[in-house]
Amino acid sequence: MTDYTKAALELAHEALYRTSPNPRVGCVLVGEDGAIIGQGSTQRAGGPHAEVMALRDAEQRGHSPQGATAYVTLEPCSHHGRTGPCCDALIQADVAKVVASIADPNPAVAGNGFARLRAAGVAVEVGPGAEASRELNLGFFSRMIRKTPWVRMKAAASLDGVTALHNGASQWITGPAARADGHAWRARACAVLTGIGTVLADNPRLDVRDVPTERQPALVLVDSALAVPLDALLFGASRRTYIYTAVAHEERRSALEALGAIVITMPNKAGKVDLPAMLQDLGRREINELHVEAGYKLNGSLLREGLIDELLVYLAPKLMGEGMGLAQMTPLTSLAEAHALSFHSVDRIGDDLRILARLQGRDRF
Amino acid sequence: MTDYTKAALELAHEALYRTSPNPRVGCVLVGEDGAIIGQGSTQRAGGPHAEVMALRDAEQRGHSPQGATAYVTLEPCSHHGRTGPCCDALIQADVAKVVASIADPNPAVAGNGFARLRAAGVAVEVGPGAEASRELNLGFFSRMIRKTPWVRMKAAASLDGVTALHNGASQWITGPAARADGHAWRARACAVLTGIGTVLADNPRLDVRDVPTERQPALVLVDSALAVPLDALLFGASRRTYIYTAVAHEERRSALEALGAIVITMPNKAGKVDLPAMLQDLGRREINELHVEAGYKLNGSLLREGLIDELLVYLAPKLMGEGMGLAQMTPLTSLAEAHALSFHSVDRIGDDLRILARLQGRDRF
Repeated sequence: MTDYTKAALELAHEALYRTSPNPRVGCVLVGEDGAIIGQGSTQRAGGPHAEVMALRDAEQRGHSPQGATAYVTLEPCSHHGRTGPCCDALIQADVAKVVASIADPNPAVAGNGFARLRAAGVAVEVGPGAEASRELNLGFFSRMIRKTPWVRMKAAASLDGVTALHNGASQWITGPAARADGHAWRARACAVLTGIGTVLADNPRLDVRDVPTERQPALVLVDSALAVPLDALLFGASRRTYIYTAVAHEERRSALEALGAIVITMPNKAGKVDLPAMLQDLGRREINELHVEAGYKLNGSLLREGLIDELLVYLAPKLMGEGMGLAQMTPLTSLAEAHALSFHSVDRIGDDLRILARLQGRDRF
Repeated sequence: MTDYTKAALELAHEALYRTSPNPRVGCVLVGEDGAIIGQGSTQRAGGPHAEVMALRDAEQRGHSPQGATAYVTLEPCSHHGRTGPCCDALIQADVAKVVASIADPNPAVAGNGFARLRAAGVAVEVGPGAEASRELNLGFFSRMIRKTPWVRMKAAASLDGVTALHNGASQWITGPAARADGHAWRARACAVLTGIGTVLADNPRLDVRDVPTERQPALVLVDSALAVPLDALLFGASRRTYIYTAVAHEERRSALEALGAIVITMPNKAGKVDLPAMLQDLGRREINELHVEAGYKLNGSLLREGLIDELLVYLAPKLMGEGMGLAQMTPLTSLAEAHALSFHSVDRIGDDLRILARLQGRDRF
């Protein structure tokens, strides 16, 4: 990976909280003498993509992109989505070469961008920074390929795995740095999901407050019986709110819709919300990363149904002994039945640990 | 810290599995031109200390220690223990200066070594590498200052804190690298402690097999009713074995003594082993580091009685859900009652995590 690709990836990172549901992309334009003449990253959905931002930057700085090489962290788009195709912008600008990290998994692009560039005489190289770019956009790749979001379950526990005392006490297990870090993970998600149990027990807002963000992720509430109180604090934040329920209760639906919520009735045979169908629906609603902050029961249902992709676990330097665990699971009879994970990253956040662990194999799609 | 002190600390580390119950000490002799002319580390108990090893090394290499500076990670001893005082050896060798990391906490030394060197005209500097040297010998410092061992509780758990299924299955939660690493932590201890529950359930040997070692740590068994079977595998290893019990059962005692075990009757009012008294006794028996590999109940008793100093926890990339936790604790009614820890180190060992966490404040003695 060259320093140009690294710079483009850094630009893509700057777009982390911004581009949803679009991918985070960075672009660096390099003149024939090797100097960076323009750079940019994808703006909010509907705004310009990274390539256009970089071309504009070059223009503003008085540089011609003619003969330049564009380092871009994702295949330039070839379709008219919310904006015009980036391919055409690059071709019009007469760049000589495009070095792209990875092909766009969007079926509307998927190699067409590269083909179009090559047909116009632009040299194309694909590969440098592929893994980092995919990782940064894992939710987007998931939605494009699997048609469902990348699902991350967040939990805070003591070193001995307790997330709440039997009397329900759970605030605060981790320290302020870990809580702010948790808000950063909310901020990068397209939506935050919780369950009615958590709403009734803790009445959380579940919006992003501890880190600056240009947009609030949507909220998804799993509420089989449509029991959410109309004065729940989660209605206070300005964002899309989806409520998945198993009942058709017209009066409550109307009252919730009057609060701006979108109510979706999607029951399974057991009279609960059909969680796999909900993920399909959230995929259709352009949710890339789904950040789950739920309780023991809903976590357990999501895990048992094989819907969790990764765990974001904050471990506090405490022993709590008796209490609730991370998720309600069917008791195992042998160790071989355990859910197999792999540790993706481990970091200290303030006095706590942050562990990102993936359900084994879930990121291979 | 100079490179000389660093080199002396590295030599001390080489003595990790060897010197018990003596401290691990390294010594580097530096000639007036700045060249290292001799080095050494403490040998097995009864053998030469680091300073004598370094002087011998210089002699063998044909260098005179006259006018040299000795970098040593602990105050040179001033008393006749198993060997002659190192102070006298340094004075006799006519070294000009001693740079020692930290004073020896042994009341028989405790500054006398420095005083004796100074009285003989040797310049003395104390401090470089103090923390690293104390850390390396925390068990020795504990025994000298608190009169009890430094107590480390080892456990292997899934990410969600489960150490065994309800049916008792616990082998193997962690992978081979973590198990070998666990043997290295056994190897550096003066003694490994377990309880009768673990012996009856798993019949472990609890000796050091997966890493090379010159000595086996002693074994300590907590067995209130003296129920250990005479054919338990733990009697197969060649080492000192202490059995603490709450009963005086002459016949069983004789049979166990015939196997080479030392049986100590030390009951508390509840008819169990008096654990605080046991630690005092182990201190008298020159146990510096006590490595606990016990089950849920004994871990809980040790924790409840405030006898654990640190936890060595291997976390496997697994979710196990229902099962036994790290230690049986009194249920908490508020989070403020949790045992407060601080994370000392976090490392990846194979596919697992190794977390060393200290009960807050326990290392300040």
